Amino acid sequence: MKIEQFQLFGDRKDVTLTTYILEDSPEILNGKKRPLILVCPGGAYMFCSDREAEPIALRFAAMGYHAAVLRYSVYSNGENKYAIPGKTPAYEKSVMPGPMREIGKAILTIREHAEEWLVDMDQIVLTGYSAGANNCALYCVYWDNPVITDYLGADKEMLRPAAAVLGYGVYDYPAMQKDLDKIGDKGRIEGNYGFNLAFFGTEHPDEETMIKGSPAFQVHETTPPMFLWSTREDNVVPARQSVLMANALAENDIPFELHIFERGMHGLALADQATSQAKEQNMPEIAQWPEMAERWLKQRFEFDVPDVCPKWEMPEE
Amino acid sequence: MKIEQFQLFGDRKDVTLTTYILEDSPEILNGKKRPLILVCPGGAYMFCSDREAEPIALRFAAMGYHAAVLRYSVYSNGENKYAIPGKTPAYEKSVMPGPMREIGKAILTIREHAEEWLVDMDQIVLTGYSAGANNCALYCVYWDNPVITDYLGADKEMLRPAAAVLGYGVYDYPAMQKDLDKIGDKGRIEGNYGFNLAFFGTEHPDEETMIKGSPAFQVHETTPPMFLWSTREDNVVPARQSVLMANALAENDIPFELHIFERGMHGLALADQATSQAKEQNMPEIAQWPEMAERWLKQRFEFDVPDVCPKWEMPEE
Repeated sequence: MKIEQFQLFGDRKDVTLTTYILEDSPEILNGKKRPLILVCPGGAYMFCSDREAEPIALRFAAMGYHAAVLRYSVYSNGENKYAIPGKTPAYEKSVMPGPMREIGKAILTIREHAEEWLVDMDQIVLTGYSAGANNCALYCVYWDNPVITDYLGADKEMLRPAAAVLGYGVYDYPAMQKDLDKIGDKGRIEGNYGFNLAFFGTEHPDEETMIKGSPAFQVHETTPPMFLWSTREDNVVPARQSVLMANALAENDIPFELHIFERGMHGLALADQATSQAKEQNMPEIAQWPEMAERWLKQRFEFDVPDVCPKWEMPEE
Repeated sequence: MKIEQFQLFGDRKDVTLTTYILEDSPEILNGKKRPLILVCPGGAYMFCSDREAEPIALRFAAMGYHAAVLRYSVYSNGENKYAIPGKTPAYEKSVMPGPMREIGKAILTIREHAEEWLVDMDQIVLTGYSAGANNCALYCVYWDNPVITDYLGADKEMLRPAAAVLGYGVYDYPAMQKDLDKIGDKGRIEGNYGFNLAFFGTEHPDEETMIKGSPAFQVHETTPPMFLWSTREDNVVPARQSVLMANALAENDIPFELHIFERGMHGLALADQATSQAKEQNMPEIAQWPEMAERWLKQRFEFDVPDVCPKWEMPEE
């Protein structure tokens, strides 16, 4: 495996693409290209969580896919560490459409190395968690829109994502706001205002802005297939978010798969020791999602290998 | 992840240790040490198979363990590419006890970096496949024997393995010879003579030599616990090998777990796309073994994290 880190904006150390490129072998794919899974960690657009970065990339690499982690612009890279409602200013770089544009920039960077790394650019899969899922889903609905293509000065076909695997994401801000108001937990509501400040640039975005930042409202025929998962007990990003996203995909005839597990808190990542900061995050029933996603990805991107192994012959000399 | 390659014998490019060291994060283990899984690929002591090298390391890294791949001395690194019975000479470096000593050398190399890498040296797990499983199992029965300790000039406590995860290995040469004679396939028997030439230095090792190279005959109280798996249909290394190894472990009261799947050819590795050279090697029922091994490893080496996540508080400023 070859690991490299790229700074996507010259001197800025906060926006990086870390690539995990598998070794080719004559015993396996022998020079054929593979899909690449691009990981966007979550962290409420305040930070990029390590728990949803390298361990996720390695889980997909273990499936035989190249992987990469994008650390996109988040609030903590600005002048303040946290976006505190009513107390801290906005930070323009973490505000939409900044973070989603960086996914496009990451894809163009990967494209520059695709021949050397043996990456199949028709098989770029985005995977994100929580705010990272929001970012990936937004990219999936805006990738061919001038907001991205004009910004990057790139033909849209250079930027097409093939699929997305998204965990406990935010897809419908108006519904999110209503659900959190219903929960009525002061901490959650304030947390959400902080999120708003980081991502919308204001604690109280207007309806139009929220709809623009809600992938569930923006799905259309060029949106790629999605694998969505979440947990019913998530009280930070309600599971209804994934249901509403699935609903939008269904309405637009976009293929999808949806798994809402009943138990489990927000932010479980791989739901096992590789990503847990506490034992309560080790949940074997939820730790099945990577295999479910593996099967779903294989349906689309099965490796082109022969049916049967070549017969081995003892060499003559 | 930090990847580094070490040459274990100065200029020799054939014996290498490639380390896959996970990044530490305050969000996960926060400075605590982890187990390391040391991978020995198979290849009949003729070569080291890529299919049983990096992909295996990455599968264990995805569980949250550090990993490393040892490419030990094999016949193809000598003057001839294959050991052809009756035609090619022996190559002393691939002959026992050479390859098993190199596992000890690898462990000492890891030990030198254990503080920097945060490796728990009491949790070194060997994993090997086919001939690699033979090599690991031999190390497990000889690690505290002068054949290794004197050669390395190291105290045995520097060399102790904590456990082993072994796939379709060779553990009992006399039984292997009998089973292959029974199968009566000329190719298999000749292949086995080639293996004998590579590992014993002669096509026809005597009984005493075979017993020395048979871990099932050498199990004793300092042999670590083992997780063994194989497939009943394997006609290269009969599944009985794993049964006989389990029998020896049982007799010596060494903890073990044994899984013999019914279907499946020799050399399945992860039994999925990450390691398959042909579709017939993708077998979902066998691809479950890494999770079974993950559960078994977790019983022994559970990460020391709190039960419950710290409550997140919105910062004051």
